[in-house]
Amino acid sequence: LTKRFIALTTDFGWGSSYVAQLKGVIASLAPNAGIIDVAHDLPSFSLRHAEVLLRSTAFAFPVGTVHVVVVDPGVGTARRPLAVKAAGMHFVGPDNGILGGPLAQTGAQCVVLDKPELFMANVSHTFHGRDIFAPVACELAQGMPLQEVGSPINDPLPSTLPAATRADGAVRGETLCADRYGNLTTNIPARWCAPDAALLVDGRLLRRVRTYGEAQPGDSVSLTGSDGFMEVAVREGSAWERFGQRAGHAVQVAVQ
Amino acid sequence: LTKRFIALTTDFGWGSSYVAQLKGVIASLAPNAGIIDVAHDLPSFSLRHAEVLLRSTAFAFPVGTVHVVVVDPGVGTARRPLAVKAAGMHFVGPDNGILGGPLAQTGAQCVVLDKPELFMANVSHTFHGRDIFAPVACELAQGMPLQEVGSPINDPLPSTLPAATRADGAVRGETLCADRYGNLTTNIPARWCAPDAALLVDGRLLRRVRTYGEAQPGDSVSLTGSDGFMEVAVREGSAWERFGQRAGHAVQVAVQ
Amino acid sequence: LTKRFIALTTDFGWGSSYVAQLKGVIASLAPNAGIIDVAHDLPSFSLRHAEVLLRSTAFAFPVGTVHVVVVDPGVGTARRPLAVKAAGMHFVGPDNGILGGPLAQTGAQCVVLDKPELFMANVSHTFHGRDIFAPVACELAQGMPLQEVGSPINDPLPSTLPAATRADGAVRGETLCADRYGNLTTNIPARWCAPDAALLVDGRLLRRVRTYGEAQPGDSVSLTGSDGFMEVAVREGSAWERFGQRAGHAVQVAVQ
Repeated sequence: LTKRFIALTTDFGWGSSYVAQLKGVIASLAPNAGIIDVAHDLPSFSLRHAEVLLRSTAFAFPVGTVHVVVVDPGVGTARRPLAVKAAGMHFVGPDNGILGGPLAQTGAQCVVLDKPELFMANVSHTFHGRDIFAPVACELAQGMPLQEVGSPINDPLPSTLPAATRADGAVRGETLCADRYGNLTTNIPARWCAPDAALLVDGRLLRRVRTYGEAQPGDSVSLTGSDGFMEVAVREGSAWERFGQRAGHAVQVAVQ
Repeated sequence: LTKRFIALTTDFGWGSSYVAQLKGVIASLAPNAGIIDVAHDLPSFSLRHAEVLLRSTAFAFPVGTVHVVVVDPGVGTARRPLAVKAAGMHFVGPDNGILGGPLAQTGAQCVVLDKPELFMANVSHTFHGRDIFAPVACELAQGMPLQEVGSPINDPLPSTLPAATRADGAVRGETLCADRYGNLTTNIPARWCAPDAALLVDGRLLRRVRTYGEAQPGDSVSLTGSDGFMEVAVREGSAWERFGQRAGHAVQVAVQ
Repeated sequence: LTKRFIALTTDFGWGSSYVAQLKGVIASLAPNAGIIDVAHDLPSFSLRHAEVLLRSTAFAFPVGTVHVVVVDPGVGTARRPLAVKAAGMHFVGPDNGILGGPLAQTGAQCVVLDKPELFMANVSHTFHGRDIFAPVACELAQGMPLQEVGSPINDPLPSTLPAATRADGAVRGETLCADRYGNLTTNIPARWCAPDAALLVDGRLLRRVRTYGEAQPGDSVSLTGSDGFMEVAVREGSAWERFGQRAGHAVQVAVQ
């Protein structure tokens, strides 16, 4: 049997009791699955950061992986718990837009988790990660098909990320957030841009480079990020600092 | 053979050489055990945080799990190294109170680790996690019974957490520490309280809710935490900030 | 078959998309290898911290372990990607000195990774960790010999750490960096010093102790670190703070 992985993406905090309990449930119910920490330090309740992280990481995992994605400000309210199948993987998490990326994949299927017999015996009002999402993820990792963990729905909430646009040859988008090095990622797919096209960020032209090494120290440049989206960087510096410690800058692809 | 897990709870720091060496020893001596990071960012030398974390996480793991718990300001002194068996799991760590929770379980057994042949060849004076606790944990995970890793003792140090009290219908306790969201946990078991009982925190009455969603943004409320203890929260805010960035508040259950 | 481990040491940031993608590739190509997080929070681009961490952790892992070590300011430039075999383990990473420790082991062998058929299909210019080092690590973990992943070279860059010196009975070195507790590690091997020899740090004599417990609270002392190098500590305090929040202090072994 192929080894299955359960990948965890949350805002619970590294070292929190919440992450440990999630792992405890998975170790109990799917002891042979590989548990992978993707991230636990997403900004609290930030759907956007969760989506951007998922965009670049989810499909690097092998087919059959189950992603547990929990940024869940609405836990305990009427928001629905979901499971999604996309690109041969499963995703479980709340219906608040964070699964919008997988849902936009061709052929994606979605169910609402409405089978309490698959949940922990006493579902708490504050911790569906442990009580609903983890046990359902274990079933999926052990081969239960999507249609058996819930009932199909057609109206899950879509991504909350702004979409880039292409019209009349003009490509427009925006910066989304920064990584640890201060590089600002955008919503503009690199495949929409000529290989040597530069970016205009808030109207300022940033030279296009292929690698950080092609820039001069301190230079602001544009390049293709390793996740296939355009990115803004400062060599040996931080684009996040350079551009006002915020995201949401207007980004345009310069026409040549 | 059932897969066994070794769960690590320390104040060594994520990414420290101490955690890596612990894992290196376990990978060497028990390669088929699953290594689980519970936490490595406990406040340095804080026995209290270790106990609160263990209280909510330890028993979420499967029977047979070995917990390595190392917050050890007395390493190298005469404090004893212990192993405890409780609720079908094992715990190894120093005799300073951090194993007080497992020790208080019905039927708990305790031994002092006094068999140097089970330790690493050269026990350092500063790192018993690597040299004593990890190799003994590997033996326990691979089936060695508790009585073979040490000699029984009756006087391990008890928990350092303050106990809540129940007398004449009055339940009194205190706040213990905050989680990442700023929620303050207490030492009052939810089962001691009526399902709709509110808390008085430093004399201030906090409305009882079932979920964070039932509170208004900014409201201070009391609710049952996901670990079965009463908790104080501020919706879309931080109880830690609201209540003076400290723990140790007097908490009473309001009589109706 | 013995279980193999792939240990990850990077400056990508815990929870970054970079670490997750690395793990995704490894889960895809070597699903049965054990993935171990050594560290992901090394100071950005600090070769020194990577080397010090590797010095104390690498050889705690079992023979057969593959270490992926990526602190790579020169990614995308002409710097070479390497694999090293030393002490029965493999190391993959950039040719910038961070593999200098393994390279200095007796019998170490080194190859440049020049077989694109072992890399990911489209090697990015900014993320060789995912596209070159991880897939090669998977081959090594699954038994491919060193000489099949690249071509031998004799001129890899050596360690960037300053070396301690021994001349005319005088041992001289320096402090390298601090751990989480504020203890300052040095480049002086403990085996070069008499068991009771004290250290002079910037000319100031620090009493030698065997354990932290032998010092008075607040005392600055010298002792053997758990990694076999001399170390400077302040009991219940921080040597890092005490000695000016920096490393690079001149350290001498006091002659008796």
